[in-house]
Amino acid sequence: MMNNNNHLVNLNPHLKKYDEDTLFHIGFSSAQDNLPEMFGDVKFVCMGGTAGRMRKYSEAFSRELEVEWTDYTKGERYGIFKAGPILCISHGIGKPSASIVLHEVIKLVNYAGCQDVVFIRMGTCGGINCEAGTVVVTNKALDEMLKPEYNLHVLGKLITRPTQLSQELAEDIISCKPSSNNFDIIRGNTLCTSDFFEGQARLDGAFCHYEEEDKMEYLKKVRDAGVRNIEMESAVVAGLCNAAQIKAAVVCVTLLDRLKTDQITLTHDQLSKYEKRPMDVILAYVSKKLGKGRKL
Amino acid sequence: MMNNNNHLVNLNPHLKKYDEDTLFHIGFSSAQDNLPEMFGDVKFVCMGGTAGRMRKYSEAFSRELEVEWTDYTKGERYGIFKAGPILCISHGIGKPSASIVLHEVIKLVNYAGCQDVVFIRMGTCGGINCEAGTVVVTNKALDEMLKPEYNLHVLGKLITRPTQLSQELAEDIISCKPSSNNFDIIRGNTLCTSDFFEGQARLDGAFCHYEEEDKMEYLKKVRDAGVRNIEMESAVVAGLCNAAQIKAAVVCVTLLDRLKTDQITLTHDQLSKYEKRPMDVILAYVSKKLGKGRKL
Repeated sequence: MMNNNNHLVNLNPHLKKYDEDTLFHIGFSSAQDNLPEMFGDVKFVCMGGTAGRMRKYSEAFSRELEVEWTDYTKGERYGIFKAGPILCISHGIGKPSASIVLHEVIKLVNYAGCQDVVFIRMGTCGGINCEAGTVVVTNKALDEMLKPEYNLHVLGKLITRPTQLSQELAEDIISCKPSSNNFDIIRGNTLCTSDFFEGQARLDGAFCHYEEEDKMEYLKKVRDAGVRNIEMESAVVAGLCNAAQIKAAVVCVTLLDRLKTDQITLTHDQLSKYEKRPMDVILAYVSKKLGKGRKL
Repeated sequence: MMNNNNHLVNLNPHLKKYDEDTLFHIGFSSAQDNLPEMFGDVKFVCMGGTAGRMRKYSEAFSRELEVEWTDYTKGERYGIFKAGPILCISHGIGKPSASIVLHEVIKLVNYAGCQDVVFIRMGTCGGINCEAGTVVVTNKALDEMLKPEYNLHVLGKLITRPTQLSQELAEDIISCKPSSNNFDIIRGNTLCTSDFFEGQARLDGAFCHYEEEDKMEYLKKVRDAGVRNIEMESAVVAGLCNAAQIKAAVVCVTLLDRLKTDQITLTHDQLSKYEKRPMDVILAYVSKKLGKGRKL
Protein backbone atom coordinates (compact mmCIF):
# COMPACT_ATOMS: atom_id res chain seq x y z
CA MET A 1 0.00 0.00 0.00
CA MET A 2 1.24 3.48 -0.84
CA ASN A 3 0.31 6.56 1.08
CA ASN A 4 3.12 8.98 0.57
CA ASN A 5 1.03 12.06 -0.01
CA ASN A 6 1.98 15.13 1.95
CA HIS A 7 -0.93 16.57 3.93
CA LEU A 8 1.13 18.83 6.14
CA VAL A 9 2.58 21.99 4.65
CA ASN A 10 6.30 22.56 4.25
CA LEU A 11 7.22 18.89 4.47
CA ASN A 12 10.25 17.51 2.69
CA PRO A 13 9.40 17.42 -1.05
CA HIS A 14 11.75 14.42 -1.59
CA LEU A 15 9.43 12.15 0.41
CA LYS A 16 7.08 11.91 -2.56
CA LYS A 17 9.79 10.11 -4.52
CA TYR A 18 10.12 7.20 -2.09
CA ASP A 19 8.16 4.02 -2.73
CA GLU A 20 8.68 3.16 0.91
CA ASP A 21 9.74 5.30 3.86
CA THR A 22 11.08 3.26 6.77
CA LEU A 23 10.56 5.12 10.04
CA PHE A 24 13.54 3.28 11.49
CA HIS A 25 13.52 4.43 15.13
CA ILE A 26 9.80 4.11 15.78
CA GLY A 27 9.45 0.98 13.66
CA PHE A 28 6.88 1.68 10.94
CA SER A 29 6.89 1.64 7.15
CA SER A 30 4.84 3.89 4.88
CA ALA A 31 4.44 0.95 2.48
CA GLN A 32 4.10 -2.07 4.76
CA ASP A 33 1.88 -0.61 7.49
CA ASN A 34 -1.60 0.72 6.92
CA LEU A 35 -0.85 4.00 8.65
CA PRO A 36 -4.19 5.73 7.85
CA GLU A 37 -6.08 2.82 9.41
CA MET A 38 -3.77 2.59 12.43
CA PHE A 39 -3.27 6.30 13.12
CA GLY A 40 -5.67 8.30 10.93
CA ASP A 41 -7.84 9.30 13.93
CA VAL A 42 -4.97 10.76 15.97
CA LYS A 43 -5.69 14.33 17.16
CA PHE A 44 -3.12 14.71 19.95
CA VAL A 45 0.51 13.60 20.04
CA CYS A 46 1.77 13.62 23.62
CA MET A 47 5.50 13.28 24.16
CA GLY A 48 7.64 12.84 27.26
CA GLY A 49 10.97 11.50 28.45
CA THR A 50 10.62 7.82 29.23
CA ALA A 51 8.66 4.94 27.72
CA GLY A 52 7.42 3.83 31.15
CA ARG A 53 5.95 7.21 31.93
CA MET A 54 4.31 7.51 28.51
CA ARG A 55 2.83 4.02 28.94
CA LYS A 56 1.40 5.05 32.32
CA TYR A 57 0.03 8.30 30.89
CA SER A 58 -1.52 6.52 27.90
CA GLU A 59 -3.18 3.96 30.19
CA ALA A 60 -4.60 6.79 32.27
CA PHE A 61 -5.91 8.56 29.12
CA SER A 62 -7.50 5.30 28.00
CA ARG A 63 -9.11 4.66 31.40
CA GLU A 64 -10.33 8.19 32.02
CA LEU A 65 -11.61 8.86 28.50
CA GLU A 66 -12.88 5.30 28.03
CA VAL A 67 -11.06 4.77 24.74
CA GLU A 68 -9.13 1.82 23.31
CA TRP A 69 -5.49 1.36 24.22
CA THR A 70 -2.78 -0.15 21.99
CA ASP A 71 0.94 -0.67 22.57
CA TYR A 72 2.73 0.02 19.26
CA THR A 73 6.24 -0.04 20.72
CA LYS A 74 8.82 -1.75 18.52
CA GLY A 75 12.38 -2.01 19.73
CA GLU A 76 13.41 -0.22 22.86
CA ARG A 77 14.54 3.22 21.79
CA TYR A 78 11.12 4.86 22.02
CA GLY A 79 7.83 3.74 23.57
CA ILE A 80 4.69 4.28 21.44
CA PHE A 81 1.15 3.90 22.78
CA LYS A 82 -2.23 4.91 21.44
CA ALA A 83 -5.23 5.77 23.62
CA GLY A 84 -8.10 6.56 21.25
CA PRO A 85 -7.12 9.77 19.41
CA ILE A 86 -4.08 10.33 21.64
CA LEU A 87 -0.67 9.05 20.55
CA CYS A 88 1.79 8.89 23.45
CA ILE A 89 5.47 8.68 22.55
CA SER A 90 8.67 8.85 24.57
CA HIS A 91 11.44 11.09 23.24
CA GLY A 92 14.35 10.35 25.58
CA ILE A 93 16.53 13.16 26.92
CA GLY A 94 17.76 16.17 24.95
CA LYS A 95 17.11 17.88 21.63
CA PRO A 96 18.88 15.31 19.39
CA SER A 97 16.89 12.40 20.83
CA ALA A 98 13.60 14.31 20.61
CA SER A 99 14.45 15.49 17.08
CA ILE A 100 14.49 11.90 15.79
CA VAL A 101 11.05 11.21 17.22
CA LEU A 102 9.65 14.48 15.92
CA HIS A 103 10.88 13.88 12.35
CA GLU A 104 9.47 10.36 12.31
CA VAL A 105 6.17 11.18 14.04
CA ILE A 106 5.57 14.21 11.83
CA LYS A 107 6.04 11.89 8.83
CA LEU A 108 3.79 9.30 10.50
CA VAL A 109 0.85 11.66 11.05
CA ASN A 110 1.36 12.96 7.53
CA TYR A 111 1.25 9.48 5.96
CA ALA A 112 -1.71 8.60 8.19
CA GLY A 113 -3.59 11.65 6.90
CA CYS A 114 -4.27 13.02 10.40
CA GLN A 115 -6.03 16.39 10.44
CA ASP A 116 -5.40 19.30 12.83
CA VAL A 117 -3.06 17.38 15.10
CA VAL A 118 -1.76 19.11 18.21
CA PHE A 119 1.65 18.14 19.67
CA ILE A 120 2.21 18.41 23.41
CA ARG A 121 5.39 17.74 25.33
CA MET A 122 4.76 16.84 28.98
CA GLY A 123 7.72 16.56 31.33
CA THR A 124 9.71 17.51 34.36
CA CYS A 125 12.02 20.49 34.68
CA GLY A 126 13.91 22.78 36.99
CA GLY A 127 12.00 25.86 38.14
CA ILE A 128 13.11 29.48 38.25
CA ASN A 129 11.57 31.47 41.03
CA CYS A 130 8.69 29.06 41.64
CA GLU A 131 7.96 26.33 44.14
CA ALA A 132 8.67 22.67 43.31
CA GLY A 133 5.49 21.14 41.90
CA THR A 134 4.46 24.18 39.84
CA VAL A 135 3.25 23.39 36.31
CA VAL A 136 4.71 25.73 33.67
CA VAL A 137 3.13 26.13 30.20
CA THR A 138 5.78 27.48 27.84
CA ASN A 139 5.42 30.77 25.91
CA LYS A 140 8.63 30.42 23.94
CA ALA A 141 11.69 28.23 24.30
CA LEU A 142 14.95 30.14 24.73
CA ASP A 143 18.43 28.82 24.02
CA GLU A 144 21.41 29.34 26.33
CA MET A 145 21.98 32.80 24.80
CA LEU A 146 18.33 33.56 25.71
CA LYS A 147 17.26 33.71 22.08
CA PRO A 148 13.92 32.16 21.00
CA GLU A 149 15.68 29.91 18.49
CA TYR A 150 16.27 26.27 17.63
CA ASN A 151 19.64 26.25 15.90
CA LEU A 152 20.98 23.32 13.93
CA HIS A 153 23.96 22.84 11.64
CA VAL A 154 22.81 21.55 8.26
CA LEU A 155 25.43 20.86 5.56
CA GLY A 156 27.91 22.96 7.53
CA LYS A 157 25.58 25.98 7.81
CA LEU A 158 23.62 27.13 10.84
CA ILE A 159 19.86 27.15 10.30
CA THR A 160 17.57 28.85 12.79
CA ARG A 161 13.91 28.10 13.52
CA PRO A 162 11.69 30.21 15.78
CA THR A 163 10.49 28.69 19.05
CA GLN A 164 7.43 30.78 19.89
CA LEU A 165 4.61 28.40 20.82
CA SER A 166 0.89 28.86 20.18
CA GLN A 167 -0.56 31.47 22.57
CA GLU A 168 -4.05 30.21 21.84
CA LEU A 169 -3.23 26.60 22.68
CA ALA A 170 -1.38 27.63 25.86
CA GLU A 171 -4.38 29.69 27.00
CA ASP A 172 -6.74 26.86 26.12
CA ILE A 173 -4.69 24.41 28.20
CA ILE A 174 -4.47 26.78 31.17
CA SER A 175 -8.21 27.47 31.06
CA CYS A 176 -8.95 23.74 31.36
CA LYS A 177 -7.04 23.22 34.56
CA PRO A 178 -8.47 20.40 36.66
CA SER A 179 -10.77 21.88 39.31
CA SER A 180 -9.48 19.41 41.90
CA ASN A 181 -5.97 20.67 41.46
CA ASN A 182 -3.99 22.06 44.36
CA PHE A 183 -0.99 23.32 42.44
CA ASP A 184 -0.08 26.43 40.46
CA ILE A 185 -0.24 26.46 36.66
CA ILE A 186 1.65 29.39 35.21
CA ARG A 187 2.90 30.57 31.83
CA GLY A 188 6.51 31.53 31.21
CA ASN A 189 9.47 31.21 28.92
CA THR A 190 11.48 28.01 29.08
CA LEU A 191 15.25 27.76 28.91
CA CYS A 192 16.15 24.75 26.74
CA THR A 193 19.74 23.55 27.21
CA SER A 194 22.00 20.94 25.67
CA ASP A 195 23.41 19.85 29.02
CA PHE A 196 22.01 19.26 32.48
CA PHE A 197 25.03 20.28 34.58
CA GLU A 198 27.29 23.02 33.17
CA GLY A 199 24.66 23.92 30.54
CA GLN A 200 22.17 24.68 33.32
CA ALA A 201 24.73 26.50 35.50
CA ARG A 202 24.82 23.76 38.13
CA LEU A 203 27.65 23.64 40.65
CA ASP A 204 27.41 19.85 41.11
CA GLY A 205 28.52 18.39 37.76
CA ALA A 206 31.74 16.46 37.26
CA PHE A 207 33.22 19.72 35.98
CA CYS A 208 32.65 23.31 37.03
CA HIS A 209 34.97 26.22 36.35
CA TYR A 210 32.72 28.96 37.78
CA GLU A 211 31.62 30.08 41.23
CA GLU A 212 28.28 30.40 43.03
CA GLU A 213 28.10 34.13 42.21
CA ASP A 214 28.66 33.49 38.45
CA LYS A 215 25.89 30.91 38.51
CA MET A 216 23.47 33.26 40.31
CA GLU A 217 24.30 36.11 37.94
CA TYR A 218 23.41 33.88 34.95
CA LEU A 219 20.26 32.44 36.54
CA LYS A 220 19.06 35.96 37.35
CA LYS A 221 19.60 36.97 33.71
CA VAL A 222 17.58 33.88 32.82
CA ARG A 223 14.83 34.91 35.24
CA ASP A 224 14.84 38.45 33.86
CA ALA A 225 14.24 37.01 30.37
CA GLY A 226 10.89 35.74 31.65
CA VAL A 227 12.09 32.18 32.14
CA ARG A 228 10.19 30.14 34.72
CA ASN A 229 11.63 26.72 33.98
CA ILE A 230 14.60 24.90 32.44
CA GLU A 231 14.55 21.65 30.48
CA MET A 232 16.18 20.06 27.43
CA GLU A 233 13.63 19.45 24.64
CA SER A 234 11.19 22.38 24.29
CA ALA A 235 13.19 24.19 21.58
CA VAL A 236 13.15 21.28 19.16
CA VAL A 237 9.45 20.58 19.80
CA ALA A 238 8.70 24.25 19.10
CA GLY A 239 11.15 24.59 16.20
CA LEU A 240 10.05 21.53 14.25
CA CYS A 241 6.33 21.95 14.95
CA ASN A 242 6.61 25.56 13.76
CA ALA A 243 8.35 24.32 10.61
CA ALA A 244 5.41 21.98 9.91
CA GLN A 245 2.83 24.55 11.06
CA ILE A 246 1.65 22.16 13.75
CA LYS A 247 0.23 23.73 16.93
CA ALA A 248 2.36 22.70 19.87
CA ALA A 249 2.58 23.13 23.64
CA VAL A 250 5.10 22.31 26.34
CA VAL A 251 3.72 21.56 29.80
CA CYS A 252 6.26 20.69 32.51
CA VAL A 253 6.30 20.38 36.28
CA THR A 254 9.18 21.82 38.28
CA LEU A 255 11.10 19.48 40.61
CA LEU A 256 13.14 22.18 42.40
CA ASP A 257 13.79 25.92 42.34
CA ARG A 258 17.18 26.48 40.71
CA LEU A 259 17.53 29.84 42.45
CA LYS A 260 17.72 27.82 45.69
CA THR A 261 19.44 24.53 44.88
CA ASP A 262 21.03 22.32 42.21
CA GLN A 263 20.30 18.85 43.56
CA ILE A 264 16.99 17.02 43.09
CA THR A 265 16.32 15.28 46.38
CA LEU A 266 12.57 14.53 46.16
CA THR A 267 11.29 11.29 47.64
CA HIS A 268 9.92 8.71 45.22
CA ASP A 269 6.36 9.61 46.33
CA GLN A 270 6.84 13.35 45.80
CA LEU A 271 8.38 12.71 42.39
CA SER A 272 5.46 10.46 41.35
CA LYS A 273 2.93 13.03 42.59
CA TYR A 274 4.61 15.87 40.69
CA GLU A 275 5.13 13.84 37.50
CA LYS A 276 1.38 13.22 37.34
CA ARG A 277 0.51 16.93 37.22
CA PRO A 278 1.26 17.70 33.55
CA MET A 279 -0.82 14.65 32.63
CA ASP A 280 -3.74 15.82 34.76
CA VAL A 281 -3.61 19.22 33.06
CA ILE A 282 -3.52 17.69 29.58
CA LEU A 283 -6.23 15.17 30.47
CA ALA A 284 -8.52 18.05 31.44
CA TYR A 285 -7.69 19.83 28.16
CA VAL A 286 -8.19 16.74 25.98
CA SER A 287 -11.43 15.84 27.80
CA LYS A 288 -12.85 19.26 27.01
CA LYS A 289 -11.72 19.11 23.38
CA LEU A 290 -13.31 15.68 22.93
CA GLY A 291 -16.49 16.86 24.63
CA LYS A 292 -16.10 14.25 27.34
CA GLY A 293 -17.97 15.12 30.50
CA ARG A 294 -15.35 13.95 32.92
CA LYS A 295 -15.57 15.88 36.18
CA LEU A 296 -12.06 17.11 36.83
CA MET B 1 29.50 7.25 54.89
CA MET B 2 31.49 10.01 53.24
CA ASN B 3 33.75 9.52 50.30
CA ASN B 4 33.82 12.80 48.50
CA ASN B 5 37.53 12.90 47.78
CA ASN B 6 38.53 13.70 44.24
CA HIS B 7 40.84 11.08 42.75
CA LEU B 8 40.51 12.21 39.16
CA VAL B 9 42.26 15.37 38.09
CA ASN B 10 40.42 18.49 37.03
CA LEU B 11 37.15 17.53 38.67
CA ASN B 12 34.73 20.13 39.97
CA PRO B 13 36.29 21.61 43.14
CA HIS B 14 32.82 22.38 44.58
CA LEU B 15 32.10 18.66 45.00
CA LYS B 16 34.30 18.53 48.09
CA LYS B 17 31.88 20.86 49.86
CA TYR B 18 28.87 18.54 49.56
CA ASP B 19 28.03 16.19 52.43
CA GLU B 20 26.01 14.16 49.95
CA ASP B 21 26.01 14.11 46.16
CA THR B 22 22.86 12.57 44.68
CA LEU B 23 23.57 11.09 41.24
CA PHE B 24 19.94 11.65 40.31
CA HIS B 25 19.73 10.03 36.86
CA ILE B 26 21.70 6.88 37.62
CA GLY B 27 20.30 6.56 41.13
CA PHE B 28 23.22 6.56 43.58
CA SER B 29 24.28 8.72 46.51
CA SER B 30 27.83 9.45 47.57
CA ALA B 31 26.70 9.35 51.21
CA GLN B 32 24.11 6.57 51.27
CA ASP B 33 25.77 4.02 48.96
CA ASN B 34 29.12 2.40 49.65
CA LEU B 35 30.47 3.30 46.23
CA PRO B 36 34.07 2.09 46.84
CA GLU B 37 32.77 -1.35 47.84
CA MET B 38 30.26 -1.50 44.96
CA PHE B 39 32.39 -0.03 42.18
CA GLY B 40 35.97 0.31 43.43
CA ASP B 41 37.21 -2.52 41.18
CA VAL B 42 35.83 -1.03 37.94
CA LYS B 43 38.50 -0.76 35.19
CA PHE B 44 36.31 -0.35 32.10
CA VAL B 45 33.17 1.73 31.61
CA CYS B 46 31.34 0.60 28.47
CA MET B 47 28.57 2.81 27.18
CA GLY B 48 25.99 2.40 24.42
CA GLY B 49 22.57 3.55 23.29
CA THR B 50 19.94 1.35 24.89
CA ALA B 51 19.57 -0.37 28.26
CA GLY B 52 18.60 -3.66 26.61
CA ARG B 53 21.73 -3.77 24.50
CA MET B 54 23.96 -2.88 27.45
CA ARG B 55 22.29 -5.60 29.53
CA LYS B 56 22.98 -8.13 26.76
CA TYR B 57 26.59 -6.93 26.39
CA SER B 58 27.17 -7.08 30.16
CA GLU B 59 25.73 -10.61 30.33
CA ALA B 60 28.08 -11.67 27.53
CA PHE B 61 31.07 -10.08 29.33
CA SER B 62 30.08 -11.92 32.51
CA ARG B 63 29.68 -15.26 30.72
CA GLU B 64 32.80 -15.03 28.57
CA LEU B 65 35.09 -13.67 31.26
CA GLU B 66 33.51 -15.76 34.03
CA VAL B 67 32.92 -12.80 36.33
CA GLU B 68 30.00 -11.82 38.58
CA TRP B 69 27.07 -9.93 37.09
CA THR B 70 24.90 -7.34 38.87
CA ASP B 71 21.99 -5.24 37.64
CA TYR B 72 22.29 -1.80 39.28
CA THR B 73 19.58 -0.15 37.18
CA LYS B 74 17.35 2.24 39.13
CA GLY B 75 14.54 3.99 37.33
CA GLU B 76 14.25 3.67 33.58
CA ARG B 77 16.31 6.49 32.11
CA TYR B 78 19.59 4.61 32.00
CA GLY B 79 20.45 0.90 32.38
CA ILE B 80 23.45 0.10 34.63
CA PHE B 81 25.04 -3.35 34.82
CA LYS B 82 28.33 -4.59 36.26
CA ALA B 83 30.23 -7.60 34.95
CA GLY B 84 33.30 -7.99 37.16
CA PRO B 85 35.49 -4.93 36.48
CA ILE B 86 33.31 -3.78 33.56
CA LEU B 87 30.54 -1.26 34.15
CA CYS B 88 28.00 -1.22 31.28
CA ILE B 89 25.76 1.84 31.04
CA SER B 90 23.26 3.04 28.48
CA HIS B 91 23.47 6.68 27.42
CA GLY B 92 20.43 7.13 25.20
CA ILE B 93 20.65 9.07 21.94
CA GLY B 94 22.58 12.29 21.39
CA LYS B 95 25.15 14.43 23.18
CA PRO B 96 22.84 15.91 25.85
CA SER B 97 21.61 12.48 26.96
CA ALA B 98 25.15 11.03 27.00
CA SER B 99 26.47 14.13 28.80
CA ILE B 100 24.24 13.43 31.83
CA VAL B 101 25.53 9.87 32.11
CA LEU B 102 29.15 10.95 31.66
CA HIS B 103 28.95 13.61 34.39
CA GLU B 104 27.35 11.18 36.83
CA VAL B 105 29.56 8.18 35.98
CA ILE B 106 32.75 10.26 36.14
CA LYS B 107 31.64 11.34 39.63
CA LEU B 108 30.76 7.72 40.45
CA VAL B 109 34.17 6.26 39.54
CA ASN B 110 35.78 9.17 41.38
CA TYR B 111 33.80 8.57 44.60
CA ALA B 112 34.45 4.82 44.22
CA GLY B 113 38.19 5.47 44.03
CA CYS B 114 38.59 3.55 40.75
CA GLN B 115 42.12 3.65 39.33
CA ASP B 116 43.11 3.93 35.63
CA VAL B 117 39.58 3.53 34.31
CA VAL B 118 39.10 3.40 30.55
CA PHE B 119 35.80 4.61 29.00
CA ILE B 120 34.54 2.99 25.78
CA ARG B 121 31.47 3.90 23.77
CA MET B 122 30.18 1.00 21.65
CA GLY B 123 27.44 1.68 19.16
CA THR B 124 25.97 1.76 15.69
CA CYS B 125 26.52 4.44 13.09
CA GLY B 126 26.31 5.43 9.47
CA GLY B 127 29.40 4.67 7.37
CA ILE B 128 31.25 6.89 4.92
CA ASN B 129 32.86 5.03 2.09
CA CYS B 130 32.78 1.63 3.81
CA GLU B 131 30.59 -1.43 3.63
CA ALA B 132 27.76 -1.96 6.15
CA GLY B 133 29.10 -4.06 9.02
CA THR B 134 32.52 -2.36 9.19
CA VAL B 135 33.75 -1.55 12.71
CA VAL B 136 35.24 1.96 13.01
CA VAL B 137 37.52 2.97 15.90
CA THR B 138 37.49 6.75 16.20
CA ASN B 139 40.60 8.93 15.92
CA LYS B 140 38.88 12.18 16.71
CA ALA B 141 35.25 13.27 16.80
CA LEU B 142 34.42 16.15 14.46
CA ASP B 143 31.47 18.49 14.74
CA GLU B 144 29.26 19.52 11.81
CA MET B 145 31.80 22.20 10.86
CA LEU B 146 34.41 19.39 10.78
CA LYS B 147 36.26 20.76 13.80
CA PRO B 148 37.59 18.35 16.48
CA GLU B 149 35.57 20.10 19.18
CA TYR B 150 32.85 19.52 21.74
CA ASN B 151 31.17 22.89 22.12
CA LEU B 152 28.79 23.77 24.90
CA HIS B 153 27.21 27.02 26.09
CA VAL B 154 27.99 27.58 29.76
CA LEU B 155 26.60 30.69 31.49
CA GLY B 156 25.97 32.21 28.07
CA LYS B 157 29.51 31.62 26.80
CA LEU B 158 30.73 28.97 24.38
CA ILE B 159 33.29 26.61 25.86
CA THR B 160 35.24 24.25 23.64
CA ARG B 161 36.83 20.93 24.56
CA PRO B 162 39.12 18.93 22.25
CA THR B 163 37.86 15.59 20.94
CA GLN B 164 41.06 13.78 19.97
CA LEU B 165 40.90 10.26 21.44
CA SER B 166 43.80 8.16 22.74
CA GLN B 167 45.89 6.85 19.82
CA GLU B 168 47.44 4.27 22.10
CA LEU B 169 44.08 2.89 23.26
CA ALA B 170 42.73 2.82 19.70
CA GLU B 171 45.80 0.86 18.50
CA ASP B 172 45.53 -1.46 21.47
CA ILE B 173 41.87 -2.19 20.67
CA ILE B 174 42.56 -2.76 16.97
CA SER B 175 45.49 -5.09 17.74
CA CYS B 176 43.20 -7.31 19.85
CA LYS B 177 40.70 -7.99 17.12
CA PRO B 178 38.98 -11.35 17.53
CA SER B 179 40.77 -13.94 15.35
CA SER B 180 37.43 -15.46 14.36
CA ASN B 181 36.21 -12.16 12.94
CA ASN B 182 35.12 -11.84 9.35
CA PHE B 183 34.65 -8.08 9.24
CA ASP B 184 36.85 -5.04 8.76
CA ILE B 185 38.05 -2.97 11.71
CA ILE B 186 39.36 0.39 10.62
CA ARG B 187 40.37 3.69 12.20
CA GLY B 188 38.94 7.01 11.08
CA ASN B 189 37.48 10.30 12.19
CA THR B 190 33.86 10.33 13.31
CA LEU B 191 31.32 13.01 12.49
CA CYS B 192 29.22 13.65 15.60
CA THR B 193 25.94 15.45 14.90
CA SER B 194 23.05 16.89 16.92
CA ASP B 195 20.41 15.54 14.54
CA PHE B 196 19.89 12.31 12.63
CA PHE B 197 18.09 13.71 9.57
CA GLU B 198 19.02 17.25 8.44
CA GLY B 199 22.10 17.25 10.70
CA GLN B 200 23.44 14.19 8.84
CA ALA B 201 22.46 15.52 5.39
CA ARG B 202 19.70 12.97 4.91
CA LEU B 203 17.08 13.50 2.20
CA ASP B 204 14.41 11.53 4.09
CA GLY B 205 13.61 13.60 7.17
CA ALA B 206 10.32 15.40 7.72
CA PHE B 207 12.08 18.54 6.43
CA CYS B 208 14.69 19.00 3.74
CA HIS B 209 15.49 22.25 1.95
CA TYR B 210 18.48 20.93 -0.06
CA GLU B 211 18.99 18.64 -3.04
CA GLU B 212 20.83 15.36 -3.64
CA GLU B 213 23.84 17.21 -5.06
CA ASP B 214 24.13 19.50 -1.99
CA LYS B 215 24.02 16.44 0.22
CA MET B 216 26.74 14.66 -1.78
CA GLU B 217 28.92 17.75 -1.81
CA TYR B 218 28.76 17.92 2.00
CA LEU B 219 29.29 14.17 2.50
CA LYS B 220 32.34 14.29 0.24
CA LYS B 221 33.75 17.16 2.31
CA VAL B 222 33.09 14.96 5.33
CA ARG B 223 34.90 12.04 3.68
CA ASP B 224 37.82 14.29 2.72
CA ALA B 225 38.17 15.25 6.40
CA GLY B 226 39.03 11.63 7.10
CA VAL B 227 35.57 10.74 8.40
CA ARG B 228 34.59 7.08 8.12
CA ASN B 229 31.44 7.14 10.21
CA ILE B 230 28.68 9.38 11.58
CA GLU B 231 26.96 9.13 14.95
CA MET B 232 25.64 11.37 17.72
CA GLU B 233 27.64 10.87 20.96
CA SER B 234 31.38 10.53 20.26
CA ALA B 235 32.19 14.24 20.76
CA VAL B 236 30.83 14.39 24.30
CA VAL B 237 32.51 11.10 25.26
CA ALA B 238 35.82 12.46 23.94
CA GLY B 239 35.32 16.00 25.26
CA LEU B 240 34.39 15.08 28.82
CA CYS B 241 36.88 12.20 29.13
CA ASN B 242 39.61 14.55 27.91
CA ALA B 243 38.52 17.07 30.52
CA ALA B 244 38.92 14.42 33.25
CA GLN B 245 42.09 12.98 31.65
CA ILE B 246 40.36 9.61 31.28
CA LYS B 247 41.50 7.44 28.34
CA ALA B 248 38.55 6.87 26.04
CA ALA B 249 37.63 5.06 22.84
CA VAL B 250 34.65 4.99 20.48
CA VAL B 251 34.00 1.72 18.63
CA CYS B 252 30.98 1.65 16.32
CA VAL B 253 29.64 -0.61 13.58
CA THR B 254 28.26 0.93 10.37
CA LEU B 255 24.70 0.01 9.36
CA LEU B 256 24.82 1.56 5.87
CA ASP B 257 27.10 3.58 3.59
CA ARG B 258 25.81 7.15 3.56
CA LEU B 259 27.47 7.80 0.19
CA LYS B 260 24.97 5.26 -1.20
CA THR B 261 21.75 5.61 0.80
CA ASP B 262 19.91 7.34 3.66
CA GLN B 263 17.52 4.63 4.80
CA ILE B 264 18.46 1.79 7.14
CA THR B 265 16.71 -1.27 5.78
CA LEU B 266 18.63 -4.13 7.46
CA THR B 267 16.71 -7.23 8.53
CA HIS B 268 16.45 -7.89 12.25
CA ASP B 269 19.04 -10.68 11.90
CA GLN B 270 21.57 -8.51 10.06
CA LEU B 271 21.09 -5.74 12.59
CA SER B 272 21.65 -8.15 15.52
CA LYS B 273 24.74 -9.60 13.84
CA TYR B 274 26.25 -6.16 13.21
CA GLU B 275 25.37 -4.82 16.66
CA LYS B 276 27.38 -7.65 18.23
CA ARG B 277 30.62 -6.68 16.48
CA PRO B 278 31.73 -3.73 18.65
CA MET B 279 31.15 -5.93 21.69
CA ASP B 280 33.24 -8.76 20.23
CA VAL B 281 36.07 -6.30 19.57
CA ILE B 282 35.93 -4.89 23.11
CA LEU B 283 35.60 -8.36 24.62
CA ALA B 284 38.84 -9.38 22.90
CA TYR B 285 40.52 -6.20 24.16
CA VAL B 286 39.27 -6.57 27.74
CA SER B 287 40.18 -10.30 27.78
CA LYS B 288 43.74 -9.46 26.87
CA LYS B 289 43.96 -6.66 29.41
CA LEU B 290 42.68 -8.93 32.17
CA GLY B 291 45.06 -11.70 31.09
CA LYS B 292 42.16 -14.04 30.39
CA GLY B 293 43.08 -16.85 28.04
CA ARG B 294 39.87 -16.80 26.05
CA LYS B 295 40.44 -17.96 22.46
CA LEU B 296 38.82 -15.35 20.30
